Amino acid sequence: MKFVFSISVLVRALLLSALFALSTHAQAQTDPLPSWNAGQAKQAIVNFVHDTTDQASPKFVPPAERVATFDQDGTLWVEQPVYAQVRYILDRVPALVKVKPELATVEPFKTVLSGNGAAIATLTTPDFETLAMATLTGLSVEQFSAQVKAWLATSRDPRWDQPYTALTYLPMQEVLDFLRTSGYKTYIVTGGGQDFVRAYAQAVYGIPPEQVVGSAVGTTFGYDEDGKPLLTKSPKLLLNDNNAGKPEGIHLMIGQRPRMAVGNSIGDRQMLEYTKAGDGVRLSMLVLHDDAKREYAYGPAQGLPASNVGTFTQALYEQADKQGWTVISMKNDWKKVFAFD
Amino acid sequence: MKFVFSISVLVRALLLSALFALSTHAQAQTDPLPSWNAGQAKQAIVNFVHDTTDQASPKFVPPAERVATFDQDGTLWVEQPVYAQVRYILDRVPALVKVKPELATVEPFKTVLSGNGAAIATLTTPDFETLAMATLTGLSVEQFSAQVKAWLATSRDPRWDQPYTALTYLPMQEVLDFLRTSGYKTYIVTGGGQDFVRAYAQAVYGIPPEQVVGSAVGTTFGYDEDGKPLLTKSPKLLLNDNNAGKPEGIHLMIGQRPRMAVGNSIGDRQMLEYTKAGDGVRLSMLVLHDDAKREYAYGPAQGLPASNVGTFTQALYEQADKQGWTVISMKNDWKKVFAFD
Repeated sequence: MKFVFSISVLVRALLLSALFALSTHAQAQTDPLPSWNAGQAKQAIVNFVHDTTDQASPKFVPPAERVATFDQDGTLWVEQPVYAQVRYILDRVPALVKVKPELATVEPFKTVLSGNGAAIATLTTPDFETLAMATLTGLSVEQFSAQVKAWLATSRDPRWDQPYTALTYLPMQEVLDFLRTSGYKTYIVTGGGQDFVRAYAQAVYGIPPEQVVGSAVGTTFGYDEDGKPLLTKSPKLLLNDNNAGKPEGIHLMIGQRPRMAVGNSIGDRQMLEYTKAGDGVRLSMLVLHDDAKREYAYGPAQGLPASNVGTFTQALYEQADKQGWTVISMKNDWKKVFAFD
Repeated sequence: MKFVFSISVLVRALLLSALFALSTHAQAQTDPLPSWNAGQAKQAIVNFVHDTTDQASPKFVPPAERVATFDQDGTLWVEQPVYAQVRYILDRVPALVKVKPELATVEPFKTVLSGNGAAIATLTTPDFETLAMATLTGLSVEQFSAQVKAWLATSRDPRWDQPYTALTYLPMQEVLDFLRTSGYKTYIVTGGGQDFVRAYAQAVYGIPPEQVVGSAVGTTFGYDEDGKPLLTKSPKLLLNDNNAGKPEGIHLMIGQRPRMAVGNSIGDRQMLEYTKAGDGVRLSMLVLHDDAKREYAYGPAQGLPASNVGTFTQALYEQADKQGWTVISMKNDWKKVFAFD
């Protein structure tokens, strides 16, 4: 008895000292955001996570309420010069015309098939909606997912000659990891297609399909020729996850107001307003693309060149200032932009 | 060195033997489904969980794909003689008329206010839709949730004189717990109102709001008189989560085919078909209410009395048999129905 007792005391002492050494070591070593320069933006994230996850903090948030939402295009990965999904839709047209040859002589398919960049650039929004419905619907959800994955495996961004999935921002990947390690559920809330993003969100961001909220067409339940049940993507927009559609989509799909939200354009405004208006500590952030050298520079906030893709107006910049949102300067706040840099 | 080594060997041996004792003890003691009688249904659940979570099993399912979906009314809690949400809607009418007195003389509000049960029973489906839209929309999502919670705190089921939230089936609560302990995400997929169920799903079932899929009206983003952003429930049905709407809602909200699904009526048929049609091991189950003494008996499958609430036809019963779904007999499979029994 005496022997066992003394052993256990000894073991406990050894274990405690080992744990202590380990934890001091970990604290001294680990910066959760190594690709961020010291500054307001990095500090805002670190403070937010500390304040909401430290049991001793008066602003502590229980794990079940730790929800963080991220726009995708321009916030988690590159959106210039055109959204990846736009390239996907254009790239799908030849395969579509193979199946439906009658489309080859019909606009806007004819123009896309011509490969004439200048002509393609003149396509209107209704043209584009026609292309989107033709390429994104009428097939089963499994077929669609397989087509997107196949495209991602072979297509390359023209500027960096990288797969699109490599064009995610390393600093934002670190934020996603840091939040998850701190008990947050991380969601993508995108104006892009929900099923499109789901096809790669787990592999690229560690975000499972149920945590992707996006614009969505409905599906129709039915049976294939063997009587096997299947869901077919139907050509009817069910959710337009832009502007006011973002908080509306968040309520539908998540049912809780986020504690943190990050965007980069006027399409994210309502999501950031809704997030910041909640009680307790809330963090709303905007990525400002002010780094033409390492990525792109566009606004037109702060005198940056105007852009139709990911418009960030001066009014949005001023609203951020007034409402206590944090603007992330790509140029100043990010030590590194891409993992391949 | 020698001393430390021998201590560590000793400690390891002690720890191993302690762990071994603990685990054999746990295995011998713990039945994850103590309110279930031994039988096919219980065995089907135990086998399913074992086959899909044992790393050595050829049917192993990675944790990210462990999705189980449950109908609510009649599957997780009592739905007879009328759905709890129907009682809620009728109970809300007096408060609604206080705010909008002009409704007092308008049908169907007038009939509901009369309190005449026989007259209320004659209300048509369009009448009921009018009542639903009037009581469930036009207010903020937070106001709605607060009203539902307040109602649940005071209302009582007339048969057992219990809060509605006490009328959940203990055996199904055990299945939810067993699945979650085994790394499954448990979802409610209900024809009832998504926001209605979200108001209590965490407290009653341990299911967070983002894991409740249900029929839903849209919301409209706007600002209150102080300029604070808010979401108002709008009187337009966005998702009808019944029949084919169940697998469609599952795809929209979860984005994965369930591994397991449980229902109790013809409204769950497509969800069970869709689930069972997936690859690998899938479990589809139906609760048969054949226990008038402890709960209710209705079908009309197996010669049970017909019912408009939770109809379980003989054709559904035969489909279950043909497609390898498991029917749970409340009478035979459940040792105990309610925790308060």
